[in-house]
Amino acid sequence: MQRYFVTKENINDKLSKATIKGKDVHHIKDVMRMKVGESIILCTDDLCEYVCNITSIGNVIDLDIISTSVNSNELKCTLTIAQGMVHKNKIEEVVRRICELGASSFVSVQMSRSNTYVKKKDDYRFDRFETIIKEACEQSERGKLLKHFGFMSFKEFIEFSKSFDVLLVCYENDGRNNKSHLVNVLNEIGYDNLINKKILVIVGPEGGFDPSEIDNLINNGFRCFGLGPRILRTETAPLMVCSVIASFLDK
Amino acid sequence: MQRYFVTKENINDKLSKATIKGKDVHHIKDVMRMKVGESIILCTDDLCEYVCNITSIGNVIDLDIISTSVNSNELKCTLTIAQGMVHKNKIEEVVRRICELGASSFVSVQMSRSNTYVKKKDDYRFDRFETIIKEACEQSERGKLLKHFGFMSFKEFIEFSKSFDVLLVCYENDGRNNKSHLVNVLNEIGYDNLINKKILVIVGPEGGFDPSEIDNLINNGFRCFGLGPRILRTETAPLMVCSVIASFLDK
Repeated sequence: MQRYFVTKENINDKLSKATIKGKDVHHIKDVMRMKVGESIILCTDDLCEYVCNITSIGNVIDLDIISTSVNSNELKCTLTIAQGMVHKNKIEEVVRRICELGASSFVSVQMSRSNTYVKKKDDYRFDRFETIIKEACEQSERGKLLKHFGFMSFKEFIEFSKSFDVLLVCYENDGRNNKSHLVNVLNEIGYDNLINKKILVIVGPEGGFDPSEIDNLINNGFRCFGLGPRILRTETAPLMVCSVIASFLDK
Repeated sequence: MQRYFVTKENINDKLSKATIKGKDVHHIKDVMRMKVGESIILCTDDLCEYVCNITSIGNVIDLDIISTSVNSNELKCTLTIAQGMVHKNKIEEVVRRICELGASSFVSVQMSRSNTYVKKKDDYRFDRFETIIKEACEQSERGKLLKHFGFMSFKEFIEFSKSFDVLLVCYENDGRNNKSHLVNVLNEIGYDNLINKKILVIVGPEGGFDPSEIDNLINNGFRCFGLGPRILRTETAPLMVCSVIASFLDK
């Protein structure tokens, strides 16, 4: 059944009614060509899912709520992926995939070897990211939308990291050292210290980390890990990170 | 150091000389703009790596072999990814990423819910796949090139599967059953039964498997596994499969 993320304002629990406004109306009417009587699922960011029947289709779509349930597809931790600033096509690709793989949020960090710079906040096409995130989360049956924190400086990132429970940095120089493989690091930290915790993982930009950045991260509580002997592109590493962490917690 | 995959014909072990012909000459001369005296690594498919100095640059590039070593970046198994036939852009994306993640070979399988069809072998742009594979394997410092088996019918695939040691099928219906999570299935099979073995994993096309195809696979020795509760696109599932299997064997 087709799913749409809406806000709580769209839901009237007391009357068991719901409405859809905005872009989703176009999607339901013109893309899916749905008719009155057909069913969809509305999802809100508090993990509620409402199976609804369409009762009228116009500029606004009206629905009757048939049943309510709680989404149980979220990761058993909140996983934030930080990535050294890369070209926006690559960010889009990463954001789309980590939505599917269960990450909770994403942030781009301006690093010394980044070959892309954001001059002003407007350079950052948040509306496009929002569309990608919404589509990917709907399609993968997530219970929450991924939160996109936009971009920040390295200094801002260090401050940002202080609110997390587990801090990890993917450092390619550690890749060939089996002891520091992500799986082994997760095992060492222990399942109980990861479950329901706020985990922050940073991967470098295309040029990799500057050694001074690694020192700075380690001094601020980050632990290095590797992903095996093969060199991964900056847009592949976050996918492997999410895959391994999700598998570790889901299994 | 820049790496290039060449065949054994390019290597003269006795004289410690090597030559490069074809497309790589253009890459070295015009893209990398390398000069006589600079060093590169030549890789051959038997896992040998030759650090070489360039001695002349013309239509052919001549090199002196400085040192020889063995690549140790390959997975500790041979992992073949089979995927229900999808659009070629998606195949390219998958092939590029699974090269980085260590897969040994790839094949597209025509399945009943595939929405893309290959009418004749020429529709399949092998030269483009070859370029993608070569670049991805060079960049990720693989010891071998990924082998692309092209496409085959489901019946041909069942025959093809008979030469493998471990047969797995990624079936979304099993995703929500923790017991059949890939990590748990790998643990059950056991490290010793995976190491150095020929593993074949099939993921469905965009429309998923037809139930009769699943029955057919199971009857032919395939074991089902899931990748957690979230629904992955057909181009994301192979990346998670490779990530999890690589982590299981590398750690």
